[in-house]
Amino acid sequence: MAVNFVRPMIPKLATDPWAIQFDAQGHLKHLLTIEGLGPTWITRILDTAENFMSVSDREIKKVPLLRGRTVVNLFFESSTRTRTTFELAAKRLSADVLNINLSTSATTKGESLLDTLRNIEAMQADMFVVRHEQSGAAHFIARHVAPHVSVLNAGDGWHAHPTQALLDAFTIRRIKGDFAPLRIAIVGDVKHSRVARSQIHAFNSLNVGELRVIGPRTLIPNDIEPLGVRVFHDMRQGLKDVDVIIMLRLQRERMEGGLLPTEQEFYRLYGLTEEKLGWAKPDAIVMHPGPANRGVEIESRVADGPQSVILEQVSNGIGVRMAVMALCMSAES
Amino acid sequence: MAVNFVRPMIPKLATDPWAIQFDAQGHLKHLLTIEGLGPTWITRILDTAENFMSVSDREIKKVPLLRGRTVVNLFFESSTRTRTTFELAAKRLSADVLNINLSTSATTKGESLLDTLRNIEAMQADMFVVRHEQSGAAHFIARHVAPHVSVLNAGDGWHAHPTQALLDAFTIRRIKGDFAPLRIAIVGDVKHSRVARSQIHAFNSLNVGELRVIGPRTLIPNDIEPLGVRVFHDMRQGLKDVDVIIMLRLQRERMEGGLLPTEQEFYRLYGLTEEKLGWAKPDAIVMHPGPANRGVEIESRVADGPQSVILEQVSNGIGVRMAVMALCMSAES
Amino acid sequence: MAVNFVRPMIPKLATDPWAIQFDAQGHLKHLLTIEGLGPTWITRILDTAENFMSVSDREIKKVPLLRGRTVVNLFFESSTRTRTTFELAAKRLSADVLNINLSTSATTKGESLLDTLRNIEAMQADMFVVRHEQSGAAHFIARHVAPHVSVLNAGDGWHAHPTQALLDAFTIRRIKGDFAPLRIAIVGDVKHSRVARSQIHAFNSLNVGELRVIGPRTLIPNDIEPLGVRVFHDMRQGLKDVDVIIMLRLQRERMEGGLLPTEQEFYRLYGLTEEKLGWAKPDAIVMHPGPANRGVEIESRVADGPQSVILEQVSNGIGVRMAVMALCMSAES
Repeated sequence: MAVNFVRPMIPKLATDPWAIQFDAQGHLKHLLTIEGLGPTWITRILDTAENFMSVSDREIKKVPLLRGRTVVNLFFESSTRTRTTFELAAKRLSADVLNINLSTSATTKGESLLDTLRNIEAMQADMFVVRHEQSGAAHFIARHVAPHVSVLNAGDGWHAHPTQALLDAFTIRRIKGDFAPLRIAIVGDVKHSRVARSQIHAFNSLNVGELRVIGPRTLIPNDIEPLGVRVFHDMRQGLKDVDVIIMLRLQRERMEGGLLPTEQEFYRLYGLTEEKLGWAKPDAIVMHPGPANRGVEIESRVADGPQSVILEQVSNGIGVRMAVMALCMSAES
Repeated sequence: MAVNFVRPMIPKLATDPWAIQFDAQGHLKHLLTIEGLGPTWITRILDTAENFMSVSDREIKKVPLLRGRTVVNLFFESSTRTRTTFELAAKRLSADVLNINLSTSATTKGESLLDTLRNIEAMQADMFVVRHEQSGAAHFIARHVAPHVSVLNAGDGWHAHPTQALLDAFTIRRIKGDFAPLRIAIVGDVKHSRVARSQIHAFNSLNVGELRVIGPRTLIPNDIEPLGVRVFHDMRQGLKDVDVIIMLRLQRERMEGGLLPTEQEFYRLYGLTEEKLGWAKPDAIVMHPGPANRGVEIESRVADGPQSVILEQVSNGIGVRMAVMALCMSAES
Repeated sequence: MAVNFVRPMIPKLATDPWAIQFDAQGHLKHLLTIEGLGPTWITRILDTAENFMSVSDREIKKVPLLRGRTVVNLFFESSTRTRTTFELAAKRLSADVLNINLSTSATTKGESLLDTLRNIEAMQADMFVVRHEQSGAAHFIARHVAPHVSVLNAGDGWHAHPTQALLDAFTIRRIKGDFAPLRIAIVGDVKHSRVARSQIHAFNSLNVGELRVIGPRTLIPNDIEPLGVRVFHDMRQGLKDVDVIIMLRLQRERMEGGLLPTEQEFYRLYGLTEEKLGWAKPDAIVMHPGPANRGVEIESRVADGPQSVILEQVSNGIGVRMAVMALCMSAES
């Protein structure tokens, strides 16, 4: 699997930056990136998530797997949606949850990140769920935590958002079954998207039949084709015969000036309207990691239409996060 | 029961806006307004609350009724007091609680209210407790949630605050017993008070002997008499022979300019002092939904005096909210 | 035990301000200050904490001692670290925890402190953990709460931080065993430190062999020697033959202008470097209540070095706070 695409964004890592995700026995300890998981671990996570989905469906949604364990949501960048799904996943495993928003607390007292980490760790935290605006932050934390602590990457800069990619794979598998015959298109701002990076690694690992990215030249990285991705700049060509369409969120906050003409122009060329959806296979499903900008990336009638599985992605996110938490804490269901 | 008083504030509702509160079997599903509950449901809620009060009194205050259910406090307007009582009520029923303050989170990413709702719902939330500055917000949400989700109105604009009215009725019943022989006076800023609106509906439904409102012309709505309420502008006349005095909070933040002369003038005419309290029955009780403005609506010696039941209202609020939560989730104690 | 040092800071208290900490049967009810606990209660707390440390070490970290009880963190001054340790301690005892930050909530509606207290109390809270920028705040609250409520002081102004002193004593006892032969030095800004005040009372009560304070004249109170403390203004002399070095955090936010020359100058004279550490006993331990200002109070190599027990202090803080909570709620382990 090629890595040129991702490696430049992780500062000063060892040769195999993903090796740190496993303990000496080869068991998953941290989830920082999709790279290095391979089809075996990805499939194990999806299978475990399938078991947990029944927990969310029944009246009493809790299992006692992580009772007495402490999960700390360490958010350096606020994200109510992501934090909430991790919090719910942890609570449904019966863990205690601490929410720590670090932009507004300890750092104002001049503590360094490492001091903060060490202190929370010393309170016998068992897992850190980390969201950070800088690429590589979760890796950095994983390299420095105590041996008993697991780290989950809940999004770091442009780099990775592995649980999002896993819940997307899970959602596709639930609906489409086998990955091998599928054509999947990822549309929009691939350049600034940690979600797209993680999806590409996951779908490659799962041997998706054909993987496409569609978007304007300014929002598609130059070095992406070695990853086994076909690049399209035209929606009609890109969507032809596609089974799964994944719309990305425009990451305007991460763009330098001039990359994007106007939102109206973007919508005209790449926004997923009912008309453009007609260019894909009739049973194509529509995905979006949320929150969607209606009228920019996607037409409301498509987001709320019969081919959209956007809300199923959210529901599936709970089960997938429960699976990752349980597996990383060596507590398979 | 007349409704002219309330209806103009709810935007575009069906003919019986309260019918949405019940499921197809006639069971209470949402609590949005007191209207439409009728004496049967109000009494059932008060009776259930009576059972739960013993839970709060015993050493282990928890019952497992809502174990594994997720209650989401969706506050678009901050209110630590109200949020806290709903949070405690949910925790004492063993539910998991998520607090989401929406002025500072998802809405900053441009998500619409409906998208936010759908997303939280997709995380398998079972109940939304909604506080919003706009009248009709809880109704709007109840019309759009998934069938398994219950919505509780924790205060919407000028419209309604039904759990407050229920806890007030509960407090009165615990002390005075039967409602039929009682004279109840609601004093102050009736015009801007969602609490007063809900109280009037509740007391009418419970057949309170006589219901009065007292206040300056500028703070009493013109169309209130059809609701079966006697209007007084003079405190001495209004408090004569009264069993229950409910002081309202001045809602200065909801007033347009010029409605209120000065706080000193308001206190002189309508502030409940020991002297004015003497005009009511000797065993009259004094209530206030809190937080009270001492020296504006009420004299401190009255608020802390032997006839005040203000703190009992707070305690009773936990039991009443437990009752509403349990009943709406079809989990009668 | 002399008290001139502390008494001026507590406004208008009765002759024995610490007597309020005990109920009529002489059982510990509140923890407001170390004064008045005596060696018996301090030792009982440390022994109970020792039992609880095994709870934090085992896989399921919870004990059901406070199941169904409600602990309210009432923070008038934000402190994520302290709040978090109390929250974890309460959760590991299976209590329900409410976090209320009062600078941003009820007080903005003009409620007085007492009204806020009475309201939260009426929600059947069982314990208040209070952090306040004013000395005496926790005493004030303890004098006014309902009989069933316990109050823990989590730091009040310059006055006291009793759980910090207890966890420091606990940490020392775990490593050094007996207190009688020990020489302990407290270094830095003693004048503005509630931690130092509480430590001095604790170590005197536990009959520490020799207690020293070291710092510039401007940061050592004049009336401290009657407390049985030896004062040093020179680090080399002060650290000679010392077993325990406690570095204090510079409380710049509580200093009036001119007390401190510059941080560089302070570090040169009193910052704990490897060189200065060499002046103490070879097996001396280094402590800091955190968060440490590296390069001001302490050199990084010392903070992270083999003699530092700073992170053990944090871990021990959970056990000590569990012990205090359990004892004050009459629930000895």
